[in-house]
Amino acid sequence: MRRAVVLLSGGLDSATTLAEAVSKGFEAHALTVRYGQRHDIEIECAKAVARAVGAASHRIAAVDLSFAGGSALTDPSLPVPKSRPDDAIGAGIPPTYVPARNTVLLSLALAWAEVLEARDLFIGANVVDYGGYPDCRPAFLRSFERLAGLATRAGVEGAAFTVHAPLLLMTKADIVRRALDLGVDTSLTWSCYDPAPGPAPCGLCDACLLRARGFREAGVPDAFSLARR
Amino acid sequence: MRRAVVLLSGGLDSATTLAEAVSKGFEAHALTVRYGQRHDIEIECAKAVARAVGAASHRIAAVDLSFAGGSALTDPSLPVPKSRPDDAIGAGIPPTYVPARNTVLLSLALAWAEVLEARDLFIGANVVDYGGYPDCRPAFLRSFERLAGLATRAGVEGAAFTVHAPLLLMTKADIVRRALDLGVDTSLTWSCYDPAPGPAPCGLCDACLLRARGFREAGVPDAFSLARR
Repeated sequence: MRRAVVLLSGGLDSATTLAEAVSKGFEAHALTVRYGQRHDIEIECAKAVARAVGAASHRIAAVDLSFAGGSALTDPSLPVPKSRPDDAIGAGIPPTYVPARNTVLLSLALAWAEVLEARDLFIGANVVDYGGYPDCRPAFLRSFERLAGLATRAGVEGAAFTVHAPLLLMTKADIVRRALDLGVDTSLTWSCYDPAPGPAPCGLCDACLLRARGFREAGVPDAFSLARR
Repeated sequence: MRRAVVLLSGGLDSATTLAEAVSKGFEAHALTVRYGQRHDIEIECAKAVARAVGAASHRIAAVDLSFAGGSALTDPSLPVPKSRPDDAIGAGIPPTYVPARNTVLLSLALAWAEVLEARDLFIGANVVDYGGYPDCRPAFLRSFERLAGLATRAGVEGAAFTVHAPLLLMTKADIVRRALDLGVDTSLTWSCYDPAPGPAPCGLCDACLLRARGFREAGVPDAFSLARR
């Protein structure tokens, strides 16, 4: 059984990505990375998703990206935008972009893959809703595969790494449908960007608005994470 | 004045690398990454080196690589080898190899470079003493440059990144000489791998032995870090 490391934030996209890895027959090892101001509720959601979807193991890695600043997700002095109009979401690079985030996340996944002797990495990157993010583009993911081959013992010995991004070209509605097809309990997932949410997601940040649009277009109701807690 | 991000561990090699960046006229921003079980004394040395060499700023980033295991530098249950024979040091990959370490370090440097609008990264990688480490090889460093161009806003806009590794092909004796030429106070630097050192470096781990050999071959005495504390 081939091993894979799957980046799992606890959100809808990464939960669906984990389910894809499991459904493809991988022994899927889930990695949740805490960076900057992300909150405990996301970690709890990630743990619940890892268990429910059937990850072979689940580890939490901590990296403090607040040292670099420059993002509303890691710098408490920068506000997370709320209630942006539909056409603003996905256009350009928003303040919630975290510099070099996917490079850092994939590097940590690669470190664990080297120890696990895994050659496959999964990430929930998406270019439909995050087209302005340079590190969600296919060329970036292919470049990371080449880097992984040069960065590791396994690569030196001839192994090739694959970065799987099964949601790359899907709309949020497609992702919702795929999640349901794969049996993901979407009520366990948490998408909200708000640094200090109440008991339910804020409903107004880009991530909440994108998620709501996805469920609406897929024609299914969204059970907020906390409904079941 | 061009800005650069310089990875600074507090050891001799990275101190010399920082001095190279400054001597080349860069506005050099030093980044020290705490990972795994590294100890406070290294951080203190890095701070002293950054001040002494003239870094424009110095930040500390924390990433816990112990989640992945697999290295004597991050897993307290794996002993750091001591008193290895001269010909064993530098041959093969030792237990102190940290999986994907330079990929993680360069990723964090890239995150800060994106915020600083820097296009130059400096790292004290070396293939003479660390030839067995895949992520010290020139091909790896070139691959990271290409990745950086794809991973960032600046890259999308056409900027090219350069990874400078000025010590890449130097022996430790060359590095000692170059450090002294550049005016680096080597007594401020800390190289020891021992997770629980006494007031002075252990003198027996690979890093201590390599350093001692370098100073011996360069024909100059080594003032241990703590001599001045």
